[in-house]
Amino acid sequence: MPDVVQKASEEIVTAGLLIIGDEILSGRTADKNIAYIASHLTAIGIQLQDVRVVPDEEDRIIEAVNTMRSRYSYVFTTGGIGPTHDDITADSVAKAFQVAIEVDPRAVAMMRERYAPERLTEARLRMARIPEGADLVDNPISRTPGFMIDNVVVMAGIPSIMQVMLDAVSSKLRTGKKMLSASVQVNAPEGDIAPVLADVAASFPDVAMGSYPFFKDGRMGAHLVLRAMDLVELEAAEKALRAELTEHNLLS
Amino acid sequence: MPDVVQKASEEIVTAGLLIIGDEILSGRTADKNIAYIASHLTAIGIQLQDVRVVPDEEDRIIEAVNTMRSRYSYVFTTGGIGPTHDDITADSVAKAFQVAIEVDPRAVAMMRERYAPERLTEARLRMARIPEGADLVDNPISRTPGFMIDNVVVMAGIPSIMQVMLDAVSSKLRTGKKMLSASVQVNAPEGDIAPVLADVAASFPDVAMGSYPFFKDGRMGAHLVLRAMDLVELEAAEKALRAELTEHNLLS
Repeated sequence: MPDVVQKASEEIVTAGLLIIGDEILSGRTADKNIAYIASHLTAIGIQLQDVRVVPDEEDRIIEAVNTMRSRYSYVFTTGGIGPTHDDITADSVAKAFQVAIEVDPRAVAMMRERYAPERLTEARLRMARIPEGADLVDNPISRTPGFMIDNVVVMAGIPSIMQVMLDAVSSKLRTGKKMLSASVQVNAPEGDIAPVLADVAASFPDVAMGSYPFFKDGRMGAHLVLRAMDLVELEAAEKALRAELTEHNLLS
Repeated sequence: MPDVVQKASEEIVTAGLLIIGDEILSGRTADKNIAYIASHLTAIGIQLQDVRVVPDEEDRIIEAVNTMRSRYSYVFTTGGIGPTHDDITADSVAKAFQVAIEVDPRAVAMMRERYAPERLTEARLRMARIPEGADLVDNPISRTPGFMIDNVVVMAGIPSIMQVMLDAVSSKLRTGKKMLSASVQVNAPEGDIAPVLADVAASFPDVAMGSYPFFKDGRMGAHLVLRAMDLVELEAAEKALRAELTEHNLLS
């Protein structure tokens, strides 16, 4: 939607999402965080523009963090902040920012609410290692915090914990104008809809129109999705699209 | 797993995956293709090393295709090859390769098996546009083909159609040594497991060990996953890990 983005660029807040974990790339674990984070960011007025999945490898994490943090208003990461030897996200993010990383007394204090002193082992204290200059992101479930350094938000990979961290950090984020959307379901193949859709799309340059085909019970159909910043424009475009589809006997 | 990858690099076949679609980034559609493709590639001996999700924007698609095709043995793309105005994947891939793109008689012939001549409209013929030098990838469900150009495989976004295309192309791909894996479930927090796991991991440098925590019914646990090219090494590592966990009363 280049037209929409360019027109309102002063008000657009963008994000990149970095999913860190060998288990997603091997297929062992099906990611559940992309869809949740995408919906959440859209709802609060942040446009997710890029998602990457990388393995638990330092150079890959550093490259992705540095590329994305220079391109987008915010970068969110999930995964790799646990206590085991393969959890290298916090150290990699510190290296990306070229800052020190040490056990953070604020993080230790949070973890004391959950762990008795004898359970705050060396392995668990690894989770309290926070890059210099970062703010902590609260984790009401298991207490071990995430963190935010500059425009990079580092969260857990476990969906339920990632979700409470995302809630905790959201109120601190700058948000932009919300993208509004409307959807029209058509039970006809995209090939029949395409000319009508292209015509209506050409008449509403500030409304992005996408067609998302589905295939169900041997029949093709499509969800036509209209997205715009301006409600009046959006409603006018939806009305025009429905009228044209009806005219061509494509709306059942 | 840098050790594993370096040791057997002659035999490693790698892949990048590019998911193309605004609808994934807005959260409107939850991606189902990453996990399927990751599992499929792992099973046939191709290591997925990178996943990216980009919007339906030409420059973003071109950049991702060109970056990934130079880095990995294969690149797979999903989405954006339908008949509507927002389907720009085939044109973008042609631009990435700097080759022409035209309606391909082979693709038209395939589509004739499904569409009567009067239904092969201009919009549908858009789907027969194939970059010069590409081979077609068969689509037994709806006939409209995907294609493979050099090391880039372009597939549909609808999961059922992507899956038959992936099956159709798999026999034509070079595959490498398969990564083998074993899994041990531990119903204890990762913080208790970490020292044991780190010790065993240090003793088996050719076996990658990952810990994937879960949080269920208020309790923490972890799946410990061992991955290696060599079955004897893998089994020895799993045996050693189970023995050490038992010794520390961590295997219930």
